[in-house]
Amino acid sequence: MTLLAGSQNPDTIFGMNDSFKESTETESGPPNQLEPTQPSNLALRRVAIDTYRENVAYLHRDCAVYRAEGFQALSKIEIRANGRRILATLNVVDDVAIVGCDELGLSEDAFVLLDLQQGHTVTVSQAEPPASIGPLRSKLAGERLGRDDFHAIIRDIAQRRYSKIELTAFLVATNRDELDREEVYFLTDAMVASGRKLDWQEPLVVDKHCIGGIPGNRTSMLVVPIVAAHGLLCPKTSSRAITSPAGTADTMEVLANVELPFDKLAEIVRDHRGCLAWGGSASLSPADDVLISVERPLAMDSPGQMVASILSKKIAAGSTHLVLDIPIGPTAKIRSMPDAQRLRRLFEYVAGRMHLSLDVVITDGRQPVGNGIGPMLEARDVMRVLQNDPKAPDDLRQKSLRLAGRLIECNPDIRGGDGYAIARDILESGRALAKMNDIIAAQGQKTFDHHHPALGPLSFEIAADVSGVVTGIDNLQIARIAGLAGAPKVVGAGVDLFHKLGDTVAAGDVLYRVHANYPADLEFSRQACARSSGYGIGSVDNVPHVFVEF
Amino acid sequence: MTLLAGSQNPDTIFGMNDSFKESTETESGPPNQLEPTQPSNLALRRVAIDTYRENVAYLHRDCAVYRAEGFQALSKIEIRANGRRILATLNVVDDVAIVGCDELGLSEDAFVLLDLQQGHTVTVSQAEPPASIGPLRSKLAGERLGRDDFHAIIRDIAQRRYSKIELTAFLVATNRDELDREEVYFLTDAMVASGRKLDWQEPLVVDKHCIGGIPGNRTSMLVVPIVAAHGLLCPKTSSRAITSPAGTADTMEVLANVELPFDKLAEIVRDHRGCLAWGGSASLSPADDVLISVERPLAMDSPGQMVASILSKKIAAGSTHLVLDIPIGPTAKIRSMPDAQRLRRLFEYVAGRMHLSLDVVITDGRQPVGNGIGPMLEARDVMRVLQNDPKAPDDLRQKSLRLAGRLIECNPDIRGGDGYAIARDILESGRALAKMNDIIAAQGQKTFDHHHPALGPLSFEIAADVSGVVTGIDNLQIARIAGLAGAPKVVGAGVDLFHKLGDTVAAGDVLYRVHANYPADLEFSRQACARSSGYGIGSVDNVPHVFVEF
Repeated sequence: MTLLAGSQNPDTIFGMNDSFKESTETESGPPNQLEPTQPSNLALRRVAIDTYRENVAYLHRDCAVYRAEGFQALSKIEIRANGRRILATLNVVDDVAIVGCDELGLSEDAFVLLDLQQGHTVTVSQAEPPASIGPLRSKLAGERLGRDDFHAIIRDIAQRRYSKIELTAFLVATNRDELDREEVYFLTDAMVASGRKLDWQEPLVVDKHCIGGIPGNRTSMLVVPIVAAHGLLCPKTSSRAITSPAGTADTMEVLANVELPFDKLAEIVRDHRGCLAWGGSASLSPADDVLISVERPLAMDSPGQMVASILSKKIAAGSTHLVLDIPIGPTAKIRSMPDAQRLRRLFEYVAGRMHLSLDVVITDGRQPVGNGIGPMLEARDVMRVLQNDPKAPDDLRQKSLRLAGRLIECNPDIRGGDGYAIARDILESGRALAKMNDIIAAQGQKTFDHHHPALGPLSFEIAADVSGVVTGIDNLQIARIAGLAGAPKVVGAGVDLFHKLGDTVAAGDVLYRVHANYPADLEFSRQACARSSGYGIGSVDNVPHVFVEF
Repeated sequence: MTLLAGSQNPDTIFGMNDSFKESTETESGPPNQLEPTQPSNLALRRVAIDTYRENVAYLHRDCAVYRAEGFQALSKIEIRANGRRILATLNVVDDVAIVGCDELGLSEDAFVLLDLQQGHTVTVSQAEPPASIGPLRSKLAGERLGRDDFHAIIRDIAQRRYSKIELTAFLVATNRDELDREEVYFLTDAMVASGRKLDWQEPLVVDKHCIGGIPGNRTSMLVVPIVAAHGLLCPKTSSRAITSPAGTADTMEVLANVELPFDKLAEIVRDHRGCLAWGGSASLSPADDVLISVERPLAMDSPGQMVASILSKKIAAGSTHLVLDIPIGPTAKIRSMPDAQRLRRLFEYVAGRMHLSLDVVITDGRQPVGNGIGPMLEARDVMRVLQNDPKAPDDLRQKSLRLAGRLIECNPDIRGGDGYAIARDILESGRALAKMNDIIAAQGQKTFDHHHPALGPLSFEIAADVSGVVTGIDNLQIARIAGLAGAPKVVGAGVDLFHKLGDTVAAGDVLYRVHANYPADLEFSRQACARSSGYGIGSVDNVPHVFVEF
């Protein structure tokens, strides 16, 4: 495995040429007769506030530089020291205990980014807007942008030169149909270029990904051990949950350490042909991580941004072949076959331009996959499947086998249609479990007994109020209930489903149980259940039709 | 003058019914066997950070509530005390000097909003999203919103329930052609309802407004004394500069106090028929003030938002008749007659629905108005016109007389066409100056000698590099140069123009002088001039044509 530098060398990102001269050197006008020249030098101070991916600078209201420079609260200022420069949003402070009149405070992220000792002399000035504000304004005005525009914007985003306001403006202005497919390709390409790009030095590097929105859909934790046991290279990095009750990284973290130094991760992949790690430390498509900080509170997920986000991460990770899962259902992200087909075509167009081999599968997204929703419950389901436990949820097992089969068929030596049987054999023989145990041991095993998972000790059950057939399970409401119960942060919290679509239930039968660790969480989720249980019960004719292309 | 409450009674805005029960009271699940129940009570602390119209809450990372509740950085939390509740964006703190483990810190704005003593017990919880997030998401998805949707969104914005991210999303999603004219009317109506509405108990309350973008365009400071001297009621409140080198409030502040308690302002209007005050303290259309905090950094100014912002302020201020100035020119906000006409029709439609009598004038926006750009320089120009000084800029004088004439014609006793002559007579007779002096004295006079204004002592001049005719003066570049020189914060800073469009100049003639107080400012403006002086010099045929409807 070698590391290819992207278009940015991370070591020099903040060492840009300083195009401004120091004002004290170039001043040649008449001497200032009002006040002595204001020095713009301040002493650096770390202000221990975590502003979460937004650089914030703190200046005292009585700081001479603040008064002289005509700064305004929330304006962007530029901080320079040692040939580095960063931009930050200004907050004005009235308390010398936070920042003194001769100091510049930086929030934790910004302090780390500038990478200097406290007390180091820094110079501040009004920031020129990031270079890409021109293209951003063009996009706000509805214009089409070119490749260079996207590269400029994404570079500035990756370098944290955008405020939350500018990030949001970019996201909303590129929402919905605002990007044509060529622009989505430019955006993807720019996102890959903003970080590092791995090269595994193998012709076949496989991965799978789901567009999300289906609770419990932890197929990666089954597909990776199956295809790695088959010998395919599958360096799977996953995100934590953004708005859902568990991401693959959250669930895997129940079983093993997922925050690995990059070199360790690469070693595990070499030794075991696969891994199941959190991708955040690998600096792949770093602009995506910044954009997510705004997408999360808005719950935005437009097609163009989704395609660029997913494909840029996979390409940066060195994948050559990707199986992409698009679930479809009444409460899934994609709710109609025409929408699914439109999204499939956009993925295929961009993947083609980026030379990534892509196989899109459209799957059943009418209800959660598996029984458990929440990290601990989902880890239990995964381990039951790997152990060939009779209590294993069959939908999770079947879906994982089919996805693994499609990946196995990326191997040119495998005949189309044979992948599924190979995957099933690997699972049933225990080779998938053995591979999973190897990966868990390599990443750092945690204590977990899937027969007795340490679920949240507070719980309540929701029962059917009438007899009939389960005709609907609302993915969004079930995810919301699990989230209010504490998932994913509280790993033992979540929802355990006892009945799925098409099951016949009698009035009083328990539909699901909610687990929580804290009374307040339990009460929040109980109130959500009272508003809507998420279950529909009716006649068998009302069960929604399945649309799948798989 | 009486005060009409809007749809919100300001005293009870934050006293909404508490629909959540305290978690400690309602917990009825099995006892928590993991940890003792976490109290969610904390002691309130003011954190002296000015986060400029965004409520920010600070919790220590080791605070029991933070750990238990599964908060995430930048998530919204709800703070409750004494029947009040506010929302705030969470910043996580790692320094007990800023906020202790048993404390909740609030930024300055949020602390004022909650209006309790430090140390008061407060309860925090995960915030339900603001009620209007549903309509906001619909708008992000491109749907048309109804009256109730806009009222819900604007109410939440006025009550500071939106984060910067949500505010930006709303602004960008209602940008450009995203709002139809009915939606702009709903938005305007909602913005009026979000604050208080004045009723001056007179049939004719006049005002003038310009959509902005033309440096030096200080006609209000001439129109108000003229029409007030004529006897019309003209309670003019103005904003400070948002992105420009001076707003009317900034310029008036050179001559008089503009930050007046609302009762004092009303008294001045009763006594003198007019005022020239800053509008920020009157709580008129408060949602607009919040939205501006995001519009400013993005320099956004879409037609729908412009119409709603301007008309809501005027209607809330109790105006019955408005003359609206739309300047048109190559570097004005509006650059073509079709665009101006489209904007005029939108203003007229919404004004009609809101029962405001509106007279739109389309004026010459090819260049700055007057000679001075910056608070002190513009105040000088205004006083020269009022004093009938031969050095008074004729364009500022003529434009002001025509606007004043249109307002005077709102009086049903004045024949159409007679207004201009009446206005000129009021100005030439010195009655306008006397009225201005009355208003200045009533608001609180400042020392100002328009013969010897205290301009910034540092300066440089820009000379013509060729001989010819002035064929263009770039409003944006001149504003930028004045802003970099320190205007409006540094009142004596700015640009003094010596030549206007159509003037014949010889190579070496001084085109303008830049004034600054600080060497760094002077240098920034000098660099901007070096990139572009903002002046075009060519043949008389190249002077752009004037399009006006006036």
